[in-house]
Order: sequence, then structure tokens, then C-alpha cells
Amino acid sequence: MLDQKPSNARPAYDALSARFKRLGVLEGALGQLQWDMSAVMPTGGAETRGEQLATLEVMAHEIITQPETADLLDQAESDELPDLSDWQQANLREMRHGWRHATALDAGLVEALAKAGKACEMVWREARPQSDFARVQPLLAEVLRLSQEAGQAKAQAFGVSLYDALLDQYEPAMTAARIDEIFDPLADFLPDFLQAALTVQAARPAPLPLEGPFPIAKQEALAHKLMRAVGFDFDHGRLDTSAHPFCGGVPDDVRITTRYDEADFTTAMMGVLHETGHALYERGLPKAWRYQPVGAARGMALHESQSLLVEMQACRSPEFLSFMAPLAREAFGGAGPAWSADNLRALTTRVAPGFIRVDADEVTYPAHIILRYRLEKALLSGDLPLAELPAAWNAGMQQLLGITPPADRLGCLQDIHWYDGAWGYFPTYSLGAMIAAQLFAKAKQDRPDIPSALARGDFSGLMAWLGEKVHSRASFHLGETLVEEATGEPLNPGIFEAHLTHRYL
Amino acid sequence: MLDQKPSNARPAYDALSARFKRLGVLEGALGQLQWDMSAVMPTGGAETRGEQLATLEVMAHEIITQPETADLLDQAESDELPDLSDWQQANLREMRHGWRHATALDAGLVEALAKAGKACEMVWREARPQSDFARVQPLLAEVLRLSQEAGQAKAQAFGVSLYDALLDQYEPAMTAARIDEIFDPLADFLPDFLQAALTVQAARPAPLPLEGPFPIAKQEALAHKLMRAVGFDFDHGRLDTSAHPFCGGVPDDVRITTRYDEADFTTAMMGVLHETGHALYERGLPKAWRYQPVGAARGMALHESQSLLVEMQACRSPEFLSFMAPLAREAFGGAGPAWSADNLRALTTRVAPGFIRVDADEVTYPAHIILRYRLEKALLSGDLPLAELPAAWNAGMQQLLGITPPADRLGCLQDIHWYDGAWGYFPTYSLGAMIAAQLFAKAKQDRPDIPSALARGDFSGLMAWLGEKVHSRASFHLGETLVEEATGEPLNPGIFEAHLTHRYL
Repeated sequence: MLDQKPSNARPAYDALSARFKRLGVLEGALGQLQWDMSAVMPTGGAETRGEQLATLEVMAHEIITQPETADLLDQAESDELPDLSDWQQANLREMRHGWRHATALDAGLVEALAKAGKACEMVWREARPQSDFARVQPLLAEVLRLSQEAGQAKAQAFGVSLYDALLDQYEPAMTAARIDEIFDPLADFLPDFLQAALTVQAARPAPLPLEGPFPIAKQEALAHKLMRAVGFDFDHGRLDTSAHPFCGGVPDDVRITTRYDEADFTTAMMGVLHETGHALYERGLPKAWRYQPVGAARGMALHESQSLLVEMQACRSPEFLSFMAPLAREAFGGAGPAWSADNLRALTTRVAPGFIRVDADEVTYPAHIILRYRLEKALLSGDLPLAELPAAWNAGMQQLLGITPPADRLGCLQDIHWYDGAWGYFPTYSLGAMIAAQLFAKAKQDRPDIPSALARGDFSGLMAWLGEKVHSRASFHLGETLVEEATGEPLNPGIFEAHLTHRYL
Repeated sequence: MLDQKPSNARPAYDALSARFKRLGVLEGALGQLQWDMSAVMPTGGAETRGEQLATLEVMAHEIITQPETADLLDQAESDELPDLSDWQQANLREMRHGWRHATALDAGLVEALAKAGKACEMVWREARPQSDFARVQPLLAEVLRLSQEAGQAKAQAFGVSLYDALLDQYEPAMTAARIDEIFDPLADFLPDFLQAALTVQAARPAPLPLEGPFPIAKQEALAHKLMRAVGFDFDHGRLDTSAHPFCGGVPDDVRITTRYDEADFTTAMMGVLHETGHALYERGLPKAWRYQPVGAARGMALHESQSLLVEMQACRSPEFLSFMAPLAREAFGGAGPAWSADNLRALTTRVAPGFIRVDADEVTYPAHIILRYRLEKALLSGDLPLAELPAAWNAGMQQLLGITPPADRLGCLQDIHWYDGAWGYFPTYSLGAMIAAQLFAKAKQDRPDIPSALARGDFSGLMAWLGEKVHSRASFHLGETLVEEATGEPLNPGIFEAHLTHRYL
């Protein structure tokens, strides 16, 4: 910082920083209102909340699309770049990235897309339980058409392909070409691996069921205990209940949610640990860059890597489960061999090909993603007519997992994403799983005491490593650079495969 | 509406309406964030929440102070007034009222006042328990000085006195001259009345104490039952817990709070019923005027009248208490004469002069208000030097209630208002009490079955009357006009005195 000119040498950057701070604060307020809507709002508040969210979103959009913002960006990039620190330069890059997405589409298209998504989602909610794809197809066609139009506009503005332009919203600078490089070998690896894992599993005794009911208050108390072990600070966050678990709020007040099932506590606990991974990422973002674009989390793949690292890598490890098993036994007054660490491990790492993505284990999950990724590319390019989606879905499931959904509610109607207008999002889930494996492997290499610490419920070493290598880096690097800086090599799906092999074979 | 020109004949009004809608929506979002801060936010979220509130407040202020807003107001008032319906004209009047307050002070003064209030409040929080007025006096002097400056600026802009200019923020168009007309006879009436009421009370057997503990979950369940009886709709609101009970949120999602004491349930129940009165006012505001200034509640006195009407007039009546007593007995498994309706009435209408306003009964409450009103006028005018406030306070308490606080924490340090910068607010509490008495008397005159309905826990008749005469009128009239339209006469403190006489003598 010593070689910087005084602040008045970069008026454009400073003005941008003030604008983007306002935007960042506004986005935090939006996050809080969205949390409220999902966690505590009575049904009758929906209309007013819709008005509030729409108004704040328009005001946020106005900040970034005001002509002065473009002028300031041009000026800072051309005149002030040499005067900026590397973090400021990265901040400017992120500002430009946000500006490009915000200005690439005209207001009419943005509105049409939002309306079409909402209309389609409403029909989808009724069509899904009835497995009636034909009913929602015309509305999905409109969403797809508008998403193609938006992708085309962005592709032209950014000089990239349509799919890459859509993907760039969720995972900046990631490309379909790079995803193919990563997913194709995995698609080859998985079917045989799955058979092998199932064979190994079948040779072992079946896990003993845990007999409930597990009262919600006791599940919640256990969840708090586990969250504290991972490092969640209840002075800076909450755990609540919602229909669809998520991590919301802001870095200094992270709101995670879960849902409870009295017949099974492991799903809620693993869900809570997953969201805790998201929460600690937010919590660890650098305080000095609060509200600035460079201070935000680095895309959806990195975010998912943090939740999956905690849930899949750390908390389904035999070490952590040996810590958790006695806590669970005590929480619910359990007794007998079903409550052993080994049985808990068998229960929480069971592999079973199924139709529903959100219920999938970590071995079969990537197959669900690869399927969706390939299909959405084909739909967006026009190679796959929408009417053929159900059949193509079922064929892909048969090819990747060896099973065929008996009805579209268990097939192409199961996820909200496409119907809601989120195209180009799915790959980030499995990129996240692979990044998680790579980061966890490197963390254990750098700090070999991590597994034994997890057996004591001590996450401090792991979190210190992640804090330094990932959380505190925020959006300073692009995603793959961050992974490479943290682990010494580019994203390598072989590490994920090695993890699966180690755990399941 | 038939004689109106088509909408394009009033472009200025329509543009204003769009601007003020954005402002109204933003204020709703602010209300939600404030509720969250008081009811559920973890302590570590305070800094970010402060940023969110400040940013949204600045953006709200910008909407109203943009030069275009002033131009549009001028234009609508001069060219379009004849084309506007009476509600639109009232809306324009309310827009101008908001604009005048927003533009009367320069930004520097607004910021200085906010900062001084915050700094003073922080010291006040420590000085109060120590009864150390001298410690907070310099900071209060600064708040007072800036409040005088703000009042002076507004007085000049509005062409009214300093005190009236401050009062106008909370109760538009109310004046100190009118308050004197109302408060002076009450100040004469109260001391003798209080002695008479205490004599009558002393001649009766003392109420039997209700023995706790009263578990919070059971209190909450009873509160829900009572709220439903009054008409609270849990699809459009919530009851939560906070340190200082309040009513927040928005008309379609009203959030009220309370605090519980395991040793006494009556305070929480009466507090909940009080906030329910506020909530039903918000809920009953006209849907057609949502987000517009004319659609908002009519000032603090009217708002307090709705809470006091429900709590003091309706829910401390023998009729309602005969409905509530068996519910309470059942809720807590009580037995014996202490749980009779008559004993509950004696407990909840007990008169006892005390030092603390928020604990005061309805007979002594106005004395607390008259004292504060007279003192704040004298402080603002400079007639009373700040150093003499503690002595003047104690002398006033002696004169009005016959007691002298032994320490300033029970005297001039007890309320946050002045320290926080809220000058000109106090009179609205007792204006509210008097309006409540007048509205309730008229409602019973129009619908003589109201008392017998309350004895069955049936508020539908009372709420229909209030909905028509008060809630649905929103800010169409100024406050005193509304009272006169609803009851057929101007605000008449004699009706409040008659209520006290009937209940306590």
C-alpha cells in the first residue's frame, strides 16, 4: 500500500467504491428480507414482500446502470489502474463484471424473463405432482426462449458462447469447454465405480436402523452443538426452520435454515452441517472489503465447495462420526449397537441410485448433474427439442445410473431451476464437490492432524486453513485460480475420484 | 370519480404517486428490518443492520428531496387540484406535509442530530441506573441545542412556533395552544380525582394475588387466544418477544412483540392487547391506498388511541375481564377466588401513584405526560435551564401526584425520548387516551350491544365500528377532524374524565 498515491489521485475508483458499497448494503437488506420471507413471514405478507423485493431490486439495478457508473468504470480502468492496489484492481474487475451482466439485457427482457419464470413456476408447482410435463411445456418453452435471448445478448456483449454467458453469472470465467474436460472423464468413471461400490456395500452387513421418533427440540439442540463444533458463532447468526433449507443473511449475521423429520435426525443434521459450511464461508469473508464486489463470495461452485467440504468431506468422515455418535446417542437417549460410530457411518455414507437429485448420495450425485448439464446445453442450443426432454432425461438416467424414472415427477419435473429461469446453474454443484475434495486433501496434507482433531469435534485447524486459503480471499482471484493458489494445481477431478475410491471401495 | 378527467390530465399527480409509492414500499422494508433487529437479530448483526437502515433511510430521503419532487408538487397543486378526487387531494396534502419535513432541515443538521442522539443515548444507558444526570447533561444539552435548531428551522419554514413545528412531525396540525386547552383542565381535575379514587379503592378489600409461576409457553398460548378474540389474523401477522414491546411491520404483515414475566401474566396480556389495538389499526388501513401517504395511519395520537381503546377501554372493562378470567384460570390451572373475574378486574384496574410512567395506571398516567409536556416546552423555549431539570421534575411530580422521586433514575432519567432526540412526542400518549375514551363512548352509543359482546369475547361489532370510522379513513382527515367526524364533537377531555369517574368512583 505504501507505493499508492493519495486517495484523491483516484477519484473515479473512490466514487465507484461508494456506489458499489450502497449496492452491497442494499443486497444485504434484500437477503434479510428474503430470509424473513422463507423463515418467519406469515402467508398474508407475500404481496407486500413482493413489492419490497421488486422495489429494492430495481433500486439496486439503477445504481449499477446509471450512466455515471459506466463513465467511472471507463475512467478508472484507463487512468487510475496503475494507482490501484492489487485488491482494488480485482475490485474494479468485479465491478465491471457486475456492470456487464446488469447492462447486457434491456429492461423489457429482464422483466419478461422474471414474469415468465414466475408464471411457469406456478404451473410447475401443480404439474409436478401430476407428472404432467405437457401442461407446463408451453410455459417452459417461453422461459427457454427468453433465456436463449438473454444468453444471446450476453454472449454478444461478452464475446463468448451463449452457454458460457449464462454460466458466467453463477461461476465467473468458467466455460462449457472446461466443464466438459472435467465432467467427461467423470461420466466415464462413475458407472463402473458405482457398480463396484454397490458390490462392496452389499458384501457388508446392512446398517441397523435408528428408531425414532426424534423430537424436533432435541434435534435442534444437537444441531446447535454440532454447529458450534464446526465454528458457527450464534452471536453472528441463527438457525431456523424453512421448507427449503438455505444459507442467507449477511457475513456478520448469517441465517441458515433446515427442516426436521421426527422419524430421522441424520438428514437434518447433515443438512445443517452443509449450511454451516456455507455460513462459515460468508463469516470468513474479509471485513476490510465488506459491501465491495471483491469482498463477496467467489461464485456458486466455490460456495458449494465449502458446504460440501464440511458436510461430505469432514462430517461424513469416520473421524467426525466417531465424535458425533455419542452426542447423538445422548441427545436422544439411544442405546445399543445401532448408535455406534460405525453404524452411523454406514447410515450416512450409504450408496443407492435414485431418481431424486436432492436425496442423492455423493457417489450418484454427479450423475444427476452431468445429465442436467448436458440436457440444458442441448436445449439452449436447440439440438434437443423441448418436447423430447422427458424421453432424453429418462435415457440419460438409464445410461448414467442404470435406472429409468417411472414418471416425470421423478424425472424432468423434479427441479425448480429451469422452470424458474435458472439456466447454467447446475454444473456448479458438482464443480463444488470436486473443489471440496481437492481442498480437503490439500488441507490434510498441510495439516496432518486434521482427521484426529475432527474425531474430537475440533475444526479449528481445518477452518484456519480454509480461512487463509479460501474465505479471506473472497473474490480476489477467479475461481480456478483460487483453487490452484490454494492447492498448488488446477482443478483435478482425479482427486474427487480418489476420495470416492478411498471411502467406498 | 365520474367527474374526473382521464388519468393523463394529471401527469404531475401520477408521477408523484409513483414516487411516493416507492417511498412507502421502502419504508415498509425499513419497518421489517427494524422488527428483525428488535425481535430476532443476533447481537453481531448490529453494525451491518445499522448500515442497511442508514442506506435505506438516505435513499428514502433522496426520493422525497429530489428537485423534481418539489416541481411536481407545485405543478399538481397549482394546475391539477380541480381534477383530483377528495382522497387524491388529501394524498397531495400529505405528500406536501412529508416533503416539508424532509426538506426543512439541511443534511448536516439531520446528521448532527442523529449522531448527537446516538451518543447521548449511549451515555444515558449508563447514567440512568446510576442516577447520574450530571454525567449525561452535556450530551443532552447538545441534543437539546440541535433540536431547538431543527425546530427553529421548521418553525420558520412552516410559519408556526418552534414547539408546534416539532409536534407536527408526530401529530400533524396539532398545536401547543390546543394541547393546553385540553391538558390544563385535566391537570386541575386529576389531583382531587386521584385522592377520591384512592379513597374508594382503600374502602374495598385488597385484590387477592395470583400465584405463579406462569410458564411463558402458556402465557403465549393465552395471548394468541386473546389476540384472535380481538380480531388479530395470524395469516397477516406475528407475535414475538422483544425487550421493548412494539407494533411494527406493514399492514398486511403486522409484527407485534411483548415480554413475559413468569411471576405475573397480566402485564404481558394487557401489553399484548395494547399492541393488538395498534395492529388492527394498521390492518384496517384501506387497501386501495397502500404505500401512499394518505393511506398511512393518522399520527401518533390516533395510533395510541387505538391501542388504548383496546387495552384500557375494552379489555380492562368488567365485561371483557369476565370473558378472560376463565380462560386465564384454565390456561394456568388456577383455582379459587383469586381467579374470579372480579378479582382480575381489581388487579388490572388498581390505582397507585408511582414514579415510573410505563408502569402507571390510567388515572395517574396523564400526570406523567402533563409533567413531561410542560418541561419539554420550557426546556425548548429556554425558560428552564437544563441544569434545573431534575429539581423541576421532582417539584412537578410532587404537585401532580404528591410524590417525590428519591433518585433521578426514577425521575428525569427514566425515559429514552429526550436523550434520543424525540422532542414534542410525549403529549400524543394522553391525547390518545382521551381520543380512545371518546371513540369508545360513541361506539357504545351507536352499538349498545358492544359491552355484552365483549363479555363473550366478541369484538366484531366494535371493530366494524372502528374500521368504518377510524381505520379505513387512514390519513384522509387531520386528526381532530377525524375525531369530530367519528364522534360528532371535537376532542372533549370531559369524556375521558367521565370514563375515569365511572370506572374508579
